[in-house]
Amino acid sequence: MTRRVRLRIAYDGTAYHGWQRQPDCPTIEGALLLASAKLLAIPQEEVIIQGASRTDAGVHALGQTAHIDHDSPRELWDFVRGLNALTEDDICIVHADEVSMDFNARHSSGGKTYRYRIWNHRFAHPHELTRSWAVRKPLDAARMQAAADLLVGEHDFAAFRASDCQAQTTTRLLTRVAVEQDGPHLTIWVEGTAFLKYMVRIIAGTLVEVGKGRFEPARITRMLAQGDRGLGGPTAAPHGLTLMSVHYPEFPWASGEEPLLGGPMY
Amino acid sequence: MTRRVRLRIAYDGTAYHGWQRQPDCPTIEGALLLASAKLLAIPQEEVIIQGASRTDAGVHALGQTAHIDHDSPRELWDFVRGLNALTEDDICIVHADEVSMDFNARHSSGGKTYRYRIWNHRFAHPHELTRSWAVRKPLDAARMQAAADLLVGEHDFAAFRASDCQAQTTTRLLTRVAVEQDGPHLTIWVEGTAFLKYMVRIIAGTLVEVGKGRFEPARITRMLAQGDRGLGGPTAAPHGLTLMSVHYPEFPWASGEEPLLGGPMY
Repeated sequence: MTRRVRLRIAYDGTAYHGWQRQPDCPTIEGALLLASAKLLAIPQEEVIIQGASRTDAGVHALGQTAHIDHDSPRELWDFVRGLNALTEDDICIVHADEVSMDFNARHSSGGKTYRYRIWNHRFAHPHELTRSWAVRKPLDAARMQAAADLLVGEHDFAAFRASDCQAQTTTRLLTRVAVEQDGPHLTIWVEGTAFLKYMVRIIAGTLVEVGKGRFEPARITRMLAQGDRGLGGPTAAPHGLTLMSVHYPEFPWASGEEPLLGGPMY
Repeated sequence: MTRRVRLRIAYDGTAYHGWQRQPDCPTIEGALLLASAKLLAIPQEEVIIQGASRTDAGVHALGQTAHIDHDSPRELWDFVRGLNALTEDDICIVHADEVSMDFNARHSSGGKTYRYRIWNHRFAHPHELTRSWAVRKPLDAARMQAAADLLVGEHDFAAFRASDCQAQTTTRLLTRVAVEQDGPHLTIWVEGTAFLKYMVRIIAGTLVEVGKGRFEPARITRMLAQGDRGLGGPTAAPHGLTLMSVHYPEFPWASGEEPLLGGPMY
């Protein structure tokens, strides 16, 4: 009988070409496919795995979620320990639980929380290189928050997507866009029900232009109204972005701020 | 007229074979020699640079200090901006000030502060791989602190040095050894007047054995009395170690805990 397991996954995306499997390219999904095939002793082509979010190349995660199907005698703990043993240390299965076959990691998701980190200083910080986007010009966080407030709610985000984004519709609901400043560390939290390709990174890149004083906060309103990507800032660097959590109605960790790598199995 | 400049330097040691120059190997000192020769428009052989600490391969720094001599019209700010432009982003000159020719970055130092970070969890944390030593067995921080207390003071640290350590004497003064625990993050702070080769890493490796319950805290007393390296734990991994600061009597940042990359020039 086929059973479905939900995995919560943390990774450092530096060495990977994003989540989605690609021939001849290291990807997170590809690494998990290979490891799962070994764990379940089946050919790779037979492994069913579905991630909640197709994170871009270089993007990190602390709360990516995926489901995987199997009809093996493997216990949940085998998935955690086994997949961790069979992948590099830059990928970590944090938790596993059994879900019904109705559950789908992607389609059952009610929302996601992303964190975008900026190191705002004249010089790059050697210890932040793979974790934060270095922005040298001083940023006005209050001004960025004023712009961020205009993004919250249901809007047509056509101006906030990659030119090759395949989504049929561009209306999305953002529930939170918060800008936090702690000295040179600036963090943008973005929470919403669903996202377009590059949406968080275009939001971050546009808020940075606002923070530098190049754009008025009201630019956001124009972008939403006109749907013109050309009005926005650059797509912020991928390595500043971390997928913190995927929300499911019954999931114990709806917020992105729970302790890392914690959870009931430890 | 020759002038001496003191530099405060932060780096990520991952890509380097330590501080000290080596032929055919990337080192921090080597990178600064090359950059300084370009900045001062003199041959590399003529650059005088002296670091306070010869950090090992893979060890990081937030407060390494070095002095450099020159008879150029260069201003202090040229050293900060110029050397940052001429080195990779994993090396950052944080501050420069002019000192007298009597000052020596190594010999004028009154002490150093090191931080050793451990990720104490059943699974490695993908975002801590180059920054913390992963120790999977649970550590008892209170027990480690009891052992750490025995290290404080002036002792013969012959048991806490590398077999190829060249130091003539092995008596050293430690002023602080503190073990802090914050969930799976465990940090050991070590402060003292001077250090032997691998001393902090052998201290960390030995305290970890105490924390696992394999050694009694009193093992430290035996090690100090017998001077036998074989009684100690392993040399902890280099990537957990960061040189936080070098202490000089008149230096504004004697403590290792001041804001990073801050300071009067910013």
